[in-house]
Amino acid sequence: MIGREEPLRIVIVGGVAGGATAAARARRCNATATITMLEKGPAVSFANCGLPYHVGGEIAERKKLLVATPELFRDRFQVDVRTQCEVQSIDRSARTVSGIDHGSGQPFMLPYDRLIVSTGSEPLRPPFMATPLSNMFQLWTLPDLDHVMACIQQMSPRKAVVVGAGFVGLEVVEQLERLGMQVTLVERGDHVLKPLDSELATLIEHELTAHGVQLALGSGVEQVISEAGRAVAVELTGGRRIECDLLIVGAGVRSRTELAKAAGLTIGQSGGVAVNEFMQTSDPLIYAVGDMTEVRHGVLDKPQRIPLAGPANRAGRVAGAHAATGHSSPAGNVLGTSIVRVFDLVAAATGLNERTCVALGIDHHIATIQANDHAGYYPGAKELTIKLIYAPEDGRILGAQVVGQAGVDKRIDVIATLMHFKGTVHDLAQLDLAYAPPFGSAKDPVHMAAFVAQNDLQNYPRLADTAIDLSGYQVVDVRSNAELERLPAVAGARHIPIDHLGQRWQELDPLAPTVVICHSGKRAHIGACWLAGQGFQQVQNLNGGMSIRRLCPTTNETRQ
Amino acid sequence: MIGREEPLRIVIVGGVAGGATAAARARRCNATATITMLEKGPAVSFANCGLPYHVGGEIAERKKLLVATPELFRDRFQVDVRTQCEVQSIDRSARTVSGIDHGSGQPFMLPYDRLIVSTGSEPLRPPFMATPLSNMFQLWTLPDLDHVMACIQQMSPRKAVVVGAGFVGLEVVEQLERLGMQVTLVERGDHVLKPLDSELATLIEHELTAHGVQLALGSGVEQVISEAGRAVAVELTGGRRIECDLLIVGAGVRSRTELAKAAGLTIGQSGGVAVNEFMQTSDPLIYAVGDMTEVRHGVLDKPQRIPLAGPANRAGRVAGAHAATGHSSPAGNVLGTSIVRVFDLVAAATGLNERTCVALGIDHHIATIQANDHAGYYPGAKELTIKLIYAPEDGRILGAQVVGQAGVDKRIDVIATLMHFKGTVHDLAQLDLAYAPPFGSAKDPVHMAAFVAQNDLQNYPRLADTAIDLSGYQVVDVRSNAELERLPAVAGARHIPIDHLGQRWQELDPLAPTVVICHSGKRAHIGACWLAGQGFQQVQNLNGGMSIRRLCPTTNETRQ
Repeated sequence: MIGREEPLRIVIVGGVAGGATAAARARRCNATATITMLEKGPAVSFANCGLPYHVGGEIAERKKLLVATPELFRDRFQVDVRTQCEVQSIDRSARTVSGIDHGSGQPFMLPYDRLIVSTGSEPLRPPFMATPLSNMFQLWTLPDLDHVMACIQQMSPRKAVVVGAGFVGLEVVEQLERLGMQVTLVERGDHVLKPLDSELATLIEHELTAHGVQLALGSGVEQVISEAGRAVAVELTGGRRIECDLLIVGAGVRSRTELAKAAGLTIGQSGGVAVNEFMQTSDPLIYAVGDMTEVRHGVLDKPQRIPLAGPANRAGRVAGAHAATGHSSPAGNVLGTSIVRVFDLVAAATGLNERTCVALGIDHHIATIQANDHAGYYPGAKELTIKLIYAPEDGRILGAQVVGQAGVDKRIDVIATLMHFKGTVHDLAQLDLAYAPPFGSAKDPVHMAAFVAQNDLQNYPRLADTAIDLSGYQVVDVRSNAELERLPAVAGARHIPIDHLGQRWQELDPLAPTVVICHSGKRAHIGACWLAGQGFQQVQNLNGGMSIRRLCPTTNETRQ
Repeated sequence: MIGREEPLRIVIVGGVAGGATAAARARRCNATATITMLEKGPAVSFANCGLPYHVGGEIAERKKLLVATPELFRDRFQVDVRTQCEVQSIDRSARTVSGIDHGSGQPFMLPYDRLIVSTGSEPLRPPFMATPLSNMFQLWTLPDLDHVMACIQQMSPRKAVVVGAGFVGLEVVEQLERLGMQVTLVERGDHVLKPLDSELATLIEHELTAHGVQLALGSGVEQVISEAGRAVAVELTGGRRIECDLLIVGAGVRSRTELAKAAGLTIGQSGGVAVNEFMQTSDPLIYAVGDMTEVRHGVLDKPQRIPLAGPANRAGRVAGAHAATGHSSPAGNVLGTSIVRVFDLVAAATGLNERTCVALGIDHHIATIQANDHAGYYPGAKELTIKLIYAPEDGRILGAQVVGQAGVDKRIDVIATLMHFKGTVHDLAQLDLAYAPPFGSAKDPVHMAAFVAQNDLQNYPRLADTAIDLSGYQVVDVRSNAELERLPAVAGARHIPIDHLGQRWQELDPLAPTVVICHSGKRAHIGACWLAGQGFQQVQNLNGGMSIRRLCPTTNETRQ
């Protein structure tokens, strides 16, 4: 233990998430240190991820959001918490931090032996927000929340516009709809939820529109039309106007790295503060944790910014121990595993998505499956969609996306756990998971996804891209007649129901490049295997089947 | 592909679980083979795990249990399914199987090039069942189920005795209670659910008694008292009598290895058929899959019998491909991951439990935690209990048990996935899992368990065994006054609420061996760290706190 005689002075800048965790951990590891936590806001350790849920009343009591109070930090951890204290500079040679106590209006200066910086991130403020309006908000802090709540109570807005279809944006949309508002979601990108690829995002878009949410995708806000200091409409690129009584903007976040930069700490290529595995910055006496810090990406194996609560908390724990004692278990890699509930659907992602693989030129294959979250014979089974992205060379899983009504969190966590170990689709196929009828299947959906990927890698047979241009192929549709009535076949497809293929395959041309399709790819796999076994030379199974193809924007024949 | 000119003849003995999976997989891998599936019962591929749920009507339709019909195997997979065909012998030199077709009463003989044996297991029939009674049943097959259902409909039993508190026993208890019966559960062991250790099993026992189920633990059935061919009571060891109108016995299962044994195939030390990673027996033309086969245990790294549906299905898939083509991905290790719902609680386990570690002399430490299944500030959070068993040498996780109302399946699957990679508590602490308020916490319960284990391994401070004899220790109880009223402290404990410890620790003797306790171990950890930091020489934190200690049978001071 360091400094029994002269207590180690640990100063923490920022009292939310990583900073709060670091303070509590530092104390547990070092009983004699003096620990001071400086927070510029009014509260420490508040549940920022819970803010949207209070807007709609799902979290009914505001006080539930206050995870730990300054008093608790003082009494339980002997941490001196000073709220409304904003640190403005770090003097590394003198080992002091200086700033303003907004409570008293007085400046302060504090010496440190170890400094932990957790200044986090803040929402981007797009140009159209330049003029403050009484019903235009961002939702990032407790004061933000209080302003939104006051507006809702005082103005009873009926029409809301939410800008930005990220996690917070979607959570806010859901809560405003819960309050009975008519909500329009404006998103600059061509689909909601950037961590998802477009076809899985389409499932979420359907869920939003099914709940009456208007979508304006591919649209930026050009300007806000205001009257008497209130927003009355937004004007989108292209000129479309959408009326609103309430405008909430979640247009991305930026790292708050100014303090670290001004102190001369190294900033990484990603724009976050560079740290080692113990969260030490380029000055080993200064640690950095949370949104404005780089973490090591588990797939790319290089530093990235991944502003999420989980990694921030775990980093805080590592930094707290290391600052207090000089040693600690290292921080782990981060995959960006994330999840959001959107009405009755849940969407989750981990690792790389297809778009990122394409952008970075990373060789990848894709297997997409649909399966029940638990045994189909047990009541209440719900469909899950899993998209697995893996390296063709060795089957290593690069990323995954899961969308469904139930069991989504379990599947993404299992895959994220596997990815911690750089596991492959072959590992995934072997996992010994818990099965009883209410909880899963003897072959879990993640197994099914792994099996499909294994078949693809072993040419048993190869998977065709979901959005493949089918002209020039012999297309064999093995669905039932009833299914064809619900969702017509692609033009020119030969229709042979799977249970007739054993008798009728001779009707097909064994020399033509062939794609077999069904609803989800399962029966098409059986059919494609059969044809390959009969000597068909080039047979592929359409990945994900018609159920996924109809979600792809580029396949015009099936666009709804 | 083998045998384009002379089709490969694949014969499968047993059409449930592994056998059915093998047939479908063999066809997909080999379009030209002749595949014959011989099943002694009336149905193939039925949902044996679903049988209990039909008893109570939770699965309302019997036909839901018929996962795949012989017609489907014929039309979709070109598999020749022959039900009621019992194979009685294998002639390995002639490569034939022989038996009786119970439908026609005729014997049959069939040649094979590759044989896949999936004869499964059957319930043990204890001596007290020697005389058949019209209301005494086992529940293993569809005919068993039909008999139970007929009895319930015709006799309207009010009092049921279920013998055996394994998975099926507990599922049956729940379903009979659902039908309004008064149920007594008789179990020879000293607690329900053998995969759990006793203190976690106590949680399930509390749930059973809370739902009106009578428990007779540590009791075997001595004899069944019958009148006019009906069971009217069971007499337990010790003489206690329990009346019943319905008696269902689930007293364990045995492997059906007779056929393999008679054919001279090697039987392993565990009593199951020995196989390699492609499920080939000592005769490489003969494969064995399912309950009567050995699998490789992922922790013990040696062959074991683990009769569960998941491993059986995965083994069938491997055997089907390998028999059909001569190659396949290997089968994975098995951890015995299992789960059961018991009214509003769920219990799950994977790997080794404490009892097995003790019995085998495996060095192990234990960390037990209680945490909410999702963020406490979001409504509906439920308490989870996680018991983590790990190697003190390197922190490798040897096993885990999880009990709770929600999110149990996710946590056991994450830990089982980690154990596939022989991961440690340090890996568990680093996992990047999905977090949003409805689904988890920034620090998930599995992280909390890992943190506790890391602290223990790093002497930060050491964990004391939950059931430790506290006499001779300075016991410091850091709970609040209100908690002490609900569950009194252990005799002689010093009571200093955690938030007062920073001021009052000097009241304690720094030289005395000290154990700090609280409700779940979380605050005791903080307190123990503090005391250790003040120079207390021997401080431990009571693993799991009073909430777990009160579940231990040996701690008389707290036995309820």
